[in-house]
Amino acid sequence: MIDVIPTISIVGKSNSGKTTLIEKLLPEIRKRNYKIGTIKHDVHGFEIDHEGKDTYKFYKAGSDSVVISSENKIALIKNVNKETQLDELTSNFLPDMDLIITEGYKRQHKPKIEVCRQSISEELLCKPEELIAVVSDINFDIGVPHFGLDDINLLADLIENKFLKPKKSRRVELIVDNKFIPIKDFVQDTIAATIRGLVSTLRGVEEGVKEINIKIRI
Amino acid sequence: MIDVIPTISIVGKSNSGKTTLIEKLLPEIRKRNYKIGTIKHDVHGFEIDHEGKDTYKFYKAGSDSVVISSENKIALIKNVNKETQLDELTSNFLPDMDLIITEGYKRQHKPKIEVCRQSISEELLCKPEELIAVVSDINFDIGVPHFGLDDINLLADLIENKFLKPKKSRRVELIVDNKFIPIKDFVQDTIAATIRGLVSTLRGVEEGVKEINIKIRI
Repeated sequence: MIDVIPTISIVGKSNSGKTTLIEKLLPEIRKRNYKIGTIKHDVHGFEIDHEGKDTYKFYKAGSDSVVISSENKIALIKNVNKETQLDELTSNFLPDMDLIITEGYKRQHKPKIEVCRQSISEELLCKPEELIAVVSDINFDIGVPHFGLDDINLLADLIENKFLKPKKSRRVELIVDNKFIPIKDFVQDTIAATIRGLVSTLRGVEEGVKEINIKIRI
Repeated sequence: MIDVIPTISIVGKSNSGKTTLIEKLLPEIRKRNYKIGTIKHDVHGFEIDHEGKDTYKFYKAGSDSVVISSENKIALIKNVNKETQLDELTSNFLPDMDLIITEGYKRQHKPKIEVCRQSISEELLCKPEELIAVVSDINFDIGVPHFGLDDINLLADLIENKFLKPKKSRRVELIVDNKFIPIKDFVQDTIAATIRGLVSTLRGVEEGVKEINIKIRI
């Protein structure tokens, strides 16, 4: 499966330093002019809003989804029935990012970077073939690029070279029943041309269309 | 412009009781088995997350969008460059709701309910033709349905009868350059059939497709 947006999972045992690594990586990648979305996997149940705020009141009063929108920030809190897949989170909420970094999501098949601190564990959680890098104060001899706990700049280089520079603009993004469907380039051309033709004749559609979003329920 | 999802704005002067009205309305509409999204218009700048939480750290460290996802709830905090239009908020974040209630958004052309308490003001903010109802302890003689501050059940009846019962399932939802394009029924059929045909031949698409989401950048 091809990713819509490059997604990297930072994994590691509990207390290994996943959050700290992400906190250090974010400004390093951001200063290279990429937009980064982060996704945290929560297994305990979380509270994000403050008691007494209007949004908190609306949520408690039975609103299934609550949005607050200002000129520089949007927040959303939304009930779901089951855990949402990573690709669905990305396509629904982070379609405009250059890179997604997840904390956790060990079982999802995304490229992974494992953090391992000697004081917590001397063994890795993942198999070498799952990992694109290990960040650790132990030097594991497993044929996977190794970075020290503070080699943030070098790790950002790896991520940039491997995932961000070769980025190609995907013209047609197709999600069928929440599953991302990869499409060959020439098929993308056909689909884009057909739909563009269909849409361009509709009243209300102006010249110079840049983006078309279409959702079909069958 | 036709709404994708019925949207009602609760408006009124500062301190008139907009939040309280929404808080009372939500459980009343929810017990009739509708999913409701609320959108709060923020003009002062808001803080929603708690200092010290991982999501808070990621946001502060430069993540443009932060998602936290659990098996029953998702939250998103996202930077934007300019204020997002109501229809865009709905199509991006609340596409699965039956009804959207907004607090504020006086200037957007959505059906409005004005709250007016005598202790705050004896004059309405909106013109009668903009309003579908007035909720007040003053009886304005303006030809608009009037509800007392506690007539929540009756107000929910009005909303249900006017906006929710006649709801028709829209099969094709088209957004072009962030603008919702209404499409006639038979044109919807043509577009749905064409795209379904295009998509059904692709490898990875299984039988019995229920929903197709497609995004095209030109």
